[in-house]
Amino acid sequence: MLPIMNTAYQSLERHFARLSSLSDALGILCWDKEVTMPHGAANRRGENLAILEGLRHEILTAPEMADLLASADAGDDVWRKANLAQMRRIHTHATALPGDLVEACTQATTRSEMAWREARRDNDFAGFLPYLTEVLNLTRQVADAKAAALGVTPYDALLDSFDPGTRQTDIDPIFTRLRAELPDLIAAVLEKQASLPSSKPLQGPFPVPQQEALGRKLMQQLGFDMTRGRLDVSTHPFCGGATHDVRLTTRYEEADFIPAMMGVLHETGHALYEQGLPEKWISQPVGQAAGMTVHESQSLMVEMQVCRSQAFVNWVAPLLRQSFSASETDAAWQPDNLHRLLTHVQPGLIRVDSDEVTYPAHILVRYEIEKALISGDLALKDLPGAFNDGIHALLGLNVPDDRRGCLQDIHWPEGLFGYFPCYALGALASAQLRATAYQQDATIAPAIGEGNFAPLMQWLRTNVHQRASSASMPDIIRSATGASLGADAYLSHIRRRYLDRAPDA
Amino acid sequence: MLPIMNTAYQSLERHFARLSSLSDALGILCWDKEVTMPHGAANRRGENLAILEGLRHEILTAPEMADLLASADAGDDVWRKANLAQMRRIHTHATALPGDLVEACTQATTRSEMAWREARRDNDFAGFLPYLTEVLNLTRQVADAKAAALGVTPYDALLDSFDPGTRQTDIDPIFTRLRAELPDLIAAVLEKQASLPSSKPLQGPFPVPQQEALGRKLMQQLGFDMTRGRLDVSTHPFCGGATHDVRLTTRYEEADFIPAMMGVLHETGHALYEQGLPEKWISQPVGQAAGMTVHESQSLMVEMQVCRSQAFVNWVAPLLRQSFSASETDAAWQPDNLHRLLTHVQPGLIRVDSDEVTYPAHILVRYEIEKALISGDLALKDLPGAFNDGIHALLGLNVPDDRRGCLQDIHWPEGLFGYFPCYALGALASAQLRATAYQQDATIAPAIGEGNFAPLMQWLRTNVHQRASSASMPDIIRSATGASLGADAYLSHIRRRYLDRAPDA
Repeated sequence: MLPIMNTAYQSLERHFARLSSLSDALGILCWDKEVTMPHGAANRRGENLAILEGLRHEILTAPEMADLLASADAGDDVWRKANLAQMRRIHTHATALPGDLVEACTQATTRSEMAWREARRDNDFAGFLPYLTEVLNLTRQVADAKAAALGVTPYDALLDSFDPGTRQTDIDPIFTRLRAELPDLIAAVLEKQASLPSSKPLQGPFPVPQQEALGRKLMQQLGFDMTRGRLDVSTHPFCGGATHDVRLTTRYEEADFIPAMMGVLHETGHALYEQGLPEKWISQPVGQAAGMTVHESQSLMVEMQVCRSQAFVNWVAPLLRQSFSASETDAAWQPDNLHRLLTHVQPGLIRVDSDEVTYPAHILVRYEIEKALISGDLALKDLPGAFNDGIHALLGLNVPDDRRGCLQDIHWPEGLFGYFPCYALGALASAQLRATAYQQDATIAPAIGEGNFAPLMQWLRTNVHQRASSASMPDIIRSATGASLGADAYLSHIRRRYLDRAPDA
Repeated sequence: MLPIMNTAYQSLERHFARLSSLSDALGILCWDKEVTMPHGAANRRGENLAILEGLRHEILTAPEMADLLASADAGDDVWRKANLAQMRRIHTHATALPGDLVEACTQATTRSEMAWREARRDNDFAGFLPYLTEVLNLTRQVADAKAAALGVTPYDALLDSFDPGTRQTDIDPIFTRLRAELPDLIAAVLEKQASLPSSKPLQGPFPVPQQEALGRKLMQQLGFDMTRGRLDVSTHPFCGGATHDVRLTTRYEEADFIPAMMGVLHETGHALYEQGLPEKWISQPVGQAAGMTVHESQSLMVEMQVCRSQAFVNWVAPLLRQSFSASETDAAWQPDNLHRLLTHVQPGLIRVDSDEVTYPAHILVRYEIEKALISGDLALKDLPGAFNDGIHALLGLNVPDDRRGCLQDIHWPEGLFGYFPCYALGALASAQLRATAYQQDATIAPAIGEGNFAPLMQWLRTNVHQRASSASMPDIIRSATGASLGADAYLSHIRRRYLDRAPDA
């Protein structure tokens, strides 16, 4: 009889469980850095984190690890096989780069991030150009080295760091279609919107304790397990923490509760994915989230697909009124007005402030530019022009300065090329998954209207969360929805919600 | 020309800097576990901590480390030489024990701790005996193995884990003297106390926010740097955290603010020591605190020596009144009454609730017993009898049950033998250091009367904190005070404060 798996594979599981503990430690330390750390500890914490990262890299790239990976046999079990494949993928990414290139990247991005903060403030692209040039040159070396190791193109190698299995050839046709349809769709949505009664603003102030209580209530309503996570405050909201300890943050402003509430809902979508990963594989690579696109699909599922729907707004309206002691008869707090507020469309210059209709346009611009930067078809000195042309072509807006143009995001200054497309792919995936879920289980939609997320979460658990990294993003979407990831569901969703003003289907 | 130090030494500094980062990570994760972690993450966090501890042990005991330690030359610099000596000491402790003994200890103490919680609750020494027997047997093996590696006696090897350089031959004569003098001294103090007006209780409730504000105010008054530390709440107060990020905790009860306030002052003493360690050596063994005795001397310096003095109480009384909006004319809030409350002496059964006069008696009992348990002169079945006899001999109290007797502390169930004496040594050291400081710098005492701790802290920085582990506890005390650690200063302090009712000198 053949063994189910060999001892090399078993050793690898032990090594990767240790790496998982290091990741947990880093997750809590990073959360702590943003939420509780006194500011005088910042430099030392930076050193601590770098040393722990270095330790992780050292364990991952030790000669023993390469030997074990070469000789490991995971047997016939699908999950073990997928686990071994993920281990090899992670190892390839880690070993593809020579140590001095990793070091050079760390130093260059640290310098570049600091320079970017000033350059954005001062609207000084020219001053920032040398820093970004250094980061881009190094990123292109990274892309080349990883491309050789993975056997893919340089841009695909960058994509693979954030979204395993996603390739430019998958994205191009989808984005081409969006590029073709989006400008007219936006125009039609704006025309329709102009024909509706204009929305009435909500009168604050909205005290922070009430906002926080509301956020917690909604998190629990969605199914977030408060015994295995937290809600706190940080300058830049995020979802982090560790296995069994998923921590999300938000920030509050007294004048408007909607940004914090939608932020909590967004991060709760990320958190529910993390809390729904398969317990059995929690400390192994195959048990981790399947990449940025699926992750973003889960946050947008909650924030955009469900919680801006008329059905959800009808249910949540009385809760919002009660949270802030508003009058039952105040017109601004009626469900229709709240829904108009939550689905207001307005082409704007700032990506992170955008609605779900115009958002993909921001990504299309960045995607084309970063491909061209990596291939060398676009010189960095021409970045502002290309950026501004792109925004004008898709959104009809003139970018008045680089601060509100190509300098607005931290991603490129941080060396994150190949990351932007995941945001738009996540939006498309959320629409496609939601439509399938509603079709496959007729109880989901009416339950949302009663504030009951259990049927939807059950479907997501089965079709997305519990699959973890046992399949790639493209495969997860395909087997969950019966079709490859595409723009159909997203475009239908936008038309139905913003043109037909019809309930989700 | 000879090199100042060799490359082996330089490599060791890099390895130990990495270990220091791991310690920082463990410190923050342990703080988080007690303060912020959701309870559903407890098991996973336990695994994470064990894996990080394992990683630290692995780095420390790697063959390369032994080679480097064997060939390292720190040159002539006193600090580097002391650093290398500390590295060798830490390495010897880590490598003295075979892996299966470490593992057996971890498992036995985990079982024993759980069994102890129930045994204490149920007053069931017989049921706990098998667990404690296992822990003691393993601890004796540990003591023998470390004794062989360090070239000291088994009990000294245990002492050395908590208090490097402290030996039983140093402690015995000091404790013998305390044993001889303490019973009569306690009786005299009680007689004197009976002749004074009885103290009036303070009327609460004392709201938690005011208690917390008071604690923060006092911490800052003492010199705690809030940009490099925090104050929070936990079930069991402690001082932990990391380098540059010293975190202390307390717990509040509305009926009485004094326990939380004195707890904060005690932990602030520990914290000021950590914040005062030399920056240059912060990530090296020589830059760490010199052991439990010196640490405890610093917490007791603040809590007992200074903050229960008449001079400090005179200064703090108006602040306390204002904190809780008490009437200026309320007799209970006058300095004399507050001082009587803060220096009330009452022989009791519970060590952690004891005043500074009776406290050492609790340690004397435990010290004699644990020496006899380690040497084999006392069998565990005879522990309750020996314990109760000791308490009766020193404090004149009959121990009514083991819950309030030998089962009250977690130390032995946790396998911490050789730890108890540091508490009493710390009390003696704090008295000896304080008396010397007051003698050497005549500005210290009057400054305390004005709530100004800067002169005292300056003296402690120079004579204790900044020395870190560049010398052993006995040497630090000797060079700071001109004499070996002894009981003179403590006994003088007690007589002066409790019999003469005179200001500290």
